[in-house]
Amino acid sequence: MSRVVFVNGEYLPYEKSKVHIEDRGYQFADGVYEVFAVIDNKLADYDAHMNRLSRSLNELNMKLPYSRKSIFFHISNIVKQNLISNGLIYLQISRGVAPRDFKFPENVKSSLVIIGKNIPLEQYINSFEKGIRVSTTKDLRWKRVDIKSLNLLAPVLAKQSAYEKNCQESWLIDEDNFITEGSSSNAWIYIDETLITRPVSNSILNGITRSTLIRGLKKRKIKYKEAKFNLNDVKKSSEAFITSATQHVMPVIKVDSIKIGKGVPGPKALDFRAAYMESLKLTDL
Amino acid sequence: MSRVVFVNGEYLPYEKSKVHIEDRGYQFADGVYEVFAVIDNKLADYDAHMNRLSRSLNELNMKLPYSRKSIFFHISNIVKQNLISNGLIYLQISRGVAPRDFKFPENVKSSLVIIGKNIPLEQYINSFEKGIRVSTTKDLRWKRVDIKSLNLLAPVLAKQSAYEKNCQESWLIDEDNFITEGSSSNAWIYIDETLITRPVSNSILNGITRSTLIRGLKKRKIKYKEAKFNLNDVKKSSEAFITSATQHVMPVIKVDSIKIGKGVPGPKALDFRAAYMESLKLTDL
Repeated sequence: MSRVVFVNGEYLPYEKSKVHIEDRGYQFADGVYEVFAVIDNKLADYDAHMNRLSRSLNELNMKLPYSRKSIFFHISNIVKQNLISNGLIYLQISRGVAPRDFKFPENVKSSLVIIGKNIPLEQYINSFEKGIRVSTTKDLRWKRVDIKSLNLLAPVLAKQSAYEKNCQESWLIDEDNFITEGSSSNAWIYIDETLITRPVSNSILNGITRSTLIRGLKKRKIKYKEAKFNLNDVKKSSEAFITSATQHVMPVIKVDSIKIGKGVPGPKALDFRAAYMESLKLTDL
Repeated sequence: MSRVVFVNGEYLPYEKSKVHIEDRGYQFADGVYEVFAVIDNKLADYDAHMNRLSRSLNELNMKLPYSRKSIFFHISNIVKQNLISNGLIYLQISRGVAPRDFKFPENVKSSLVIIGKNIPLEQYINSFEKGIRVSTTKDLRWKRVDIKSLNLLAPVLAKQSAYEKNCQESWLIDEDNFITEGSSSNAWIYIDETLITRPVSNSILNGITRSTLIRGLKKRKIKYKEAKFNLNDVKKSSEAFITSATQHVMPVIKVDSIKIGKGVPGPKALDFRAAYMESLKLTDL
């Protein structure tokens, strides 16, 4: 449980961290967010996350409520005050508080919340060694999932459906039966010594971990391809993965009833994780 | 501005009406809502709205946090304490407060907020006499808009785009170029003495005002049809309307550059509004 939260300029105890009922994040999902990994007391890919945050804000005609410099300062404080050595920072910006009306309010300052969470490294290692199981479900999301917004009810339902099938993630299937991505991660399969992930468009989130892994693959001269893939391709794959800020590179051992490889993390998993780790940019706090 | 708000069991001054930053309504749009019209100190179609609320909750595997009887009691209090004779009640239920995780939390009580708002009758009459202008935009919403959920970022963007074109509502166009509905209303056109609105499916919200108007049309033996329609059909229509809890039956005088009829509310507008008003069920508070 977080102890100190940054809420609109104040550092508050977790229990007392509140926002107004007419914050547009609460009534309209009218806001955006980022999740930054904290690795060994450092922020992972800070600039890339902040650039994506700026893009999301821009697409919704919103602005950063503070300078980048002061946001970094507050993130740093939250990491330190909550004694996070490994874990995450969750940063959310909504359009602000105004009497309920769909159209944008005028002259309203956007709201900023920064939460820190400790996640012991062993928890990640443990998942990595076992691999995760994935189920699939229809992609019910809206058509601008390239914006990292709070409009997350479809991913919530997808993740819950995975959980009810004893899986840890859900891969979303579009109307042409291709896999778009996971409910909170990008999806990858490994076929013919080539790692494949769906190309960036309005139908997936442009994952920071995805981009960092691609940089790592290039450095190591590992073959990769950006292409759509479906469940038939999954059947042919010898390994599979998800990537996200908190899951890094995580092996997938099953998709629905399809066993991937030998049903345990495959021989390439460590390579790909290393490719990611060595391309990561870490920022001191 | 509302003076007293019901928030999770307490009656609070508007300024102090807050919810926790990890309310799932704030982080995931994981909740539902209803808007009830208050007409002459009475609640409009209360049972129908509560039935739809129950359906929305059920689709998301959520429950009413209080009995219907006690929710009615609290709505009644909010109407009276805020001296609302004409206006609306906004009622929102989210899945509750839990550390951020996409899947449903266990053993969490859902959150309930009830806000009241006065809207002078003259404001509605004034709009009705002038009619409203509508622009169109792509329907970017998720695939379960039959659930009246907080997943509203697409309607927010649609309404804003209307506002920027000096219009009051936006009609949403699906991938087959049919109009689904308005960003916060159902859409209707009048052709060949028949009132037409899109049939209920996962692609529109099953409007309470829509249903009440249909009952009224039947009583008055006015011809109507549930059918998809597009902008070509709009061009052929002599009148057009939107329906919603707060707009009741509202004439549309322009859709994009298409002038409807003579560009002023048509001769049928008063009939249709009367058909709605006489079929409305009013509940004393």
